Amino acid sequence: MSTYIAPLKDIRFVIKELADLEGLTRMPGGEEITPEVVDAILEQAARFASCVLAPLNRSGDLEGAHWHDRQVTSPRGFKEAYRWFVDNGWSALSCRPEHGGQGLPRLVAAAVSEMWKSANHAFSLCPMLTMGAIEALELCGNPEQKALYLPKMVSGEWTGTMNITEPQAGSDLAAIRTRAEPQGDGSYRIFGQKIFITWGDHDMTDNIVHLVLARTSNAPEGVKGISLFVVPKFLVNADGSLGERNDAWCVSVEKKLGIHASPTCVMAFGDNGGAIGTLVGQENEGLKYMFIMMNAARFAVGLEGLAVAEAAYQKALSYARERIQSRAIEGSTEPIAIVHHPDVRRMLMTMKSKVEAMRALAYRVAGIQDLAQRHADQEERFRNQALVDLLTPVVKGWLTETGNEVASLGVQIHGGMGFIEEAGAAQYFRDARITTIYEGTTGIQANDLIGRKIARDDGVTMKVLLEQMKQTWSETARQTDPEFAVIADALAEGIVAVEEAVNYIVAGYLDDLRSVAAGAVPFLNLMGIVCGGWSMALAALAAKAHIDGGNRDDFYPAKITTACFFATHILPQAPALARVVLQGGSSTLALPESMF
Amino acid sequence: MSTYIAPLKDIRFVIKELADLEGLTRMPGGEEITPEVVDAILEQAARFASCVLAPLNRSGDLEGAHWHDRQVTSPRGFKEAYRWFVDNGWSALSCRPEHGGQGLPRLVAAAVSEMWKSANHAFSLCPMLTMGAIEALELCGNPEQKALYLPKMVSGEWTGTMNITEPQAGSDLAAIRTRAEPQGDGSYRIFGQKIFITWGDHDMTDNIVHLVLARTSNAPEGVKGISLFVVPKFLVNADGSLGERNDAWCVSVEKKLGIHASPTCVMAFGDNGGAIGTLVGQENEGLKYMFIMMNAARFAVGLEGLAVAEAAYQKALSYARERIQSRAIEGSTEPIAIVHHPDVRRMLMTMKSKVEAMRALAYRVAGIQDLAQRHADQEERFRNQALVDLLTPVVKGWLTETGNEVASLGVQIHGGMGFIEEAGAAQYFRDARITTIYEGTTGIQANDLIGRKIARDDGVTMKVLLEQMKQTWSETARQTDPEFAVIADALAEGIVAVEEAVNYIVAGYLDDLRSVAAGAVPFLNLMGIVCGGWSMALAALAAKAHIDGGNRDDFYPAKITTACFFATHILPQAPALARVVLQGGSSTLALPESMF
Repeated sequence: MSTYIAPLKDIRFVIKELADLEGLTRMPGGEEITPEVVDAILEQAARFASCVLAPLNRSGDLEGAHWHDRQVTSPRGFKEAYRWFVDNGWSALSCRPEHGGQGLPRLVAAAVSEMWKSANHAFSLCPMLTMGAIEALELCGNPEQKALYLPKMVSGEWTGTMNITEPQAGSDLAAIRTRAEPQGDGSYRIFGQKIFITWGDHDMTDNIVHLVLARTSNAPEGVKGISLFVVPKFLVNADGSLGERNDAWCVSVEKKLGIHASPTCVMAFGDNGGAIGTLVGQENEGLKYMFIMMNAARFAVGLEGLAVAEAAYQKALSYARERIQSRAIEGSTEPIAIVHHPDVRRMLMTMKSKVEAMRALAYRVAGIQDLAQRHADQEERFRNQALVDLLTPVVKGWLTETGNEVASLGVQIHGGMGFIEEAGAAQYFRDARITTIYEGTTGIQANDLIGRKIARDDGVTMKVLLEQMKQTWSETARQTDPEFAVIADALAEGIVAVEEAVNYIVAGYLDDLRSVAAGAVPFLNLMGIVCGGWSMALAALAAKAHIDGGNRDDFYPAKITTACFFATHILPQAPALARVVLQGGSSTLALPESMF
Repeated sequence: MSTYIAPLKDIRFVIKELADLEGLTRMPGGEEITPEVVDAILEQAARFASCVLAPLNRSGDLEGAHWHDRQVTSPRGFKEAYRWFVDNGWSALSCRPEHGGQGLPRLVAAAVSEMWKSANHAFSLCPMLTMGAIEALELCGNPEQKALYLPKMVSGEWTGTMNITEPQAGSDLAAIRTRAEPQGDGSYRIFGQKIFITWGDHDMTDNIVHLVLARTSNAPEGVKGISLFVVPKFLVNADGSLGERNDAWCVSVEKKLGIHASPTCVMAFGDNGGAIGTLVGQENEGLKYMFIMMNAARFAVGLEGLAVAEAAYQKALSYARERIQSRAIEGSTEPIAIVHHPDVRRMLMTMKSKVEAMRALAYRVAGIQDLAQRHADQEERFRNQALVDLLTPVVKGWLTETGNEVASLGVQIHGGMGFIEEAGAAQYFRDARITTIYEGTTGIQANDLIGRKIARDDGVTMKVLLEQMKQTWSETARQTDPEFAVIADALAEGIVAVEEAVNYIVAGYLDDLRSVAAGAVPFLNLMGIVCGGWSMALAALAAKAHIDGGNRDDFYPAKITTACFFATHILPQAPALARVVLQGGSSTLALPESMF
């Protein structure tokens, strides 16, 4: 059976040619990030992903995480793999050096984490959630908290979790009921139940650091009364050694459609007297801190869409090359590999072009994240942060929706075998399904996009983005090759579609909010498709430069053809989506609820 | 937890107003099919589906079919449910009266089987496959075979299977290797292995009648050397009593993504001396017979797409009405049911409009099937059969692709609960996934559509269909209400898109076959969307007539709004798909296989 092999060539191409790794090396603190160092990291990560994580993907799915006596045991091999992961320093990649991290750019970390996610989605969630918890403590923790928790979390000795959701509080954080009672000694006792807690308990580390949203007594109602607490599984003594078992227990794990190896826990805090925790930052500011973490987590989940699509594509391509079935439609004496059949090709090209467009877009956003953090000029940092804020819901929403489509095509290419679990295509299809839901559904992303990210600044940041797209269009249109004419025309149409939709959203957001909101997800998809097409146009231009420079590597003409496929098969949906945004609101909202 | 309730109102509306049940009652043999009889049947079926089949859907999924000692045991409750099914006469609904059937129109049978499929997809496969086997024997069996098998299969006392696929022969029947050796007494001994045999073994009946494709010695190579055999699990004595156990065994069952309660068997024929069978019809004509059955089976699988979408819609709607989460985007003091949120509405309307469009199209095709069989005038029978042949791959391909999309939206509306198996939305998502694969993948349907059904007759039948669509358009355009203008405009654009694509296909099929074939699936989707939009326009016109006649039932304005939603949200994809068909071929095929 085929297994995952990291697509290093495309990863390097995107990092270096589209996301401007070199530019990052000129930022403060970026001197050591030479292309050679980055190459070495990528190669080692690729090996680790293929040799350690990928072999545990199917066995982990079959076995699942075990729950007994309020404790979770990870599937066979996971504990050892996690130890290697930590020993090889992978958990500390983009963490700040002051807590033991390697301080690598997010761009490089994104590429590396794509590999973890492709190789073993369920495993990758544990370090991903830890990363979110680290960022929250780095940004908002007090010096004691940082000293107590961060070194061991950065090293990977302990993992972290995010405890947000409660049965009545999913998308709606205002409904959170978990209570925090001050003990007079600076600590609090936490009482409440949290659900959907990823890796909420496990046996891979000695301790787990839970970040928990809760309300103090007398806190205001709604989202303005939520505070963030750090609640370790085992209390930590001042010298860093482990103390008593805290009153935070996994009382059950969910039976899920996918990511079986990742325990999704129901966590009970305080059933036996109260779980001891300390406040992170200020009281009632928890939502703000959560959103800081959330942006990183949303971007990371977007990468999961890309990653599962890449893995599904590899498996489908390998099957299509091996599976001999039927004669060629244009005539052949012998049955042939199905990769030759036009419709299988269409599916493979759809998968390939979407994977490459997603990677190009996501890594470019990762590069902008680095500029937003590292640029010497504050104005540049702000400008780039605004772009990151705008594009994060697009990356989360479009990449995960697309990841699902691609994983489904992977099943389809396998024919009957796609439905048989042993073949592995079905696992990607199942695992992918959570990505459009957790860390905010596609609907939540789309509302964030049209509201906070576009309407709130009157579309100003969006206009900056559109200007960048138009610049790429004009470079593309200048090329004389016919493929570039195809790409330029489709991109132009896409840009017009986005512009029309944005104007409609900005104009209607106050007066006709429900109609505008009814088109939020179609708009997000429109943005994703056009940003993907834009990124593929940039990729085609970069490939052209290599070809013109005499480079004979097949990779470059293939990139141009793939961009051309995206332009002829995917971008044409843009005008249709713009029409849905502009004209679809009334029929969406017309039916009284009783008439459904 | 919500359960399935048959959508009788829409079912009746489509049967009576769009598929012309009344016309059928005027056909020979249709006198007894009064509206009252049909209503009574639908109501009883609805009750059986909700009370007997639906409650076994989740338990059957959890438990799955059991295999041990070359025998399959069905999940708890299935045996009893099957007995009730038979005792209530449901297995014989559309079978010919001469073998004990009730001879009801396919239109009515389609509606009833939609209910079985919605309530319990896995269960419904057993009678569906039996039906296919019955049709094969009715059409091609000799008198002895008919006398020996048909009465007990029609009554449901025995079930039937179709044994087509082998490991190397999936879509490609030419590769079939199973052998049949004549014994000199008119019987054959069958040797070979068949895979993916639905309900290939079980404990619900005393006997199972396998129809098996195999090659006789000296048969020509390829599809011209395939013969069809009837191979019972237990040999049948001349008096109808059961004789010896035949050498046909289930040697394993597959672990699948979905339809767990339906055993998917690996069948070994002849491992112990040869499975005794008799030839159906003529030697080497097996493929022809297979295709007769296949059209019925493909239509039936298309109905599965509709059925799973209906069930997923009901579950999602019920959840959306119950789940309280977040405040209204336009402002509200208290959290509200999520059905009020614009994006949830958009998803529900997408589900609802697609379900209704699928039902309208499928039942209309079922009505045409009846005309093709029952019309007194031979020319009319031929004309209608040509339409059935043209539309069958559209029903199979588009309804199943759409069923998957709708089931996925059902998961999405459930948010995090959608990923938890207990909620049930995930099961529909898993179960639906097989429908675009078995009985010919979407790619196979699309090739059939553009090749055998369109190019082969130079688009003549397609033009008949387009004329019918245009007539509906002109009726729609004549209405003065603004909703009808929206519907008419979108339909007109869709018709133009189909026409352009058909012209391209007919013109290019000989000279540029691979490019045309590269657009086959986009064309099938285009056809599905436009046929769906056409059917919804007819539905809106019928609803309008009721409203104009003074009928105040909410059902009718809701139907017009739903048609309008389909016109503004789904039909706009038509021009984009036509562009993919016309312009997408070259970029699909440009990449050499090595460059993927």
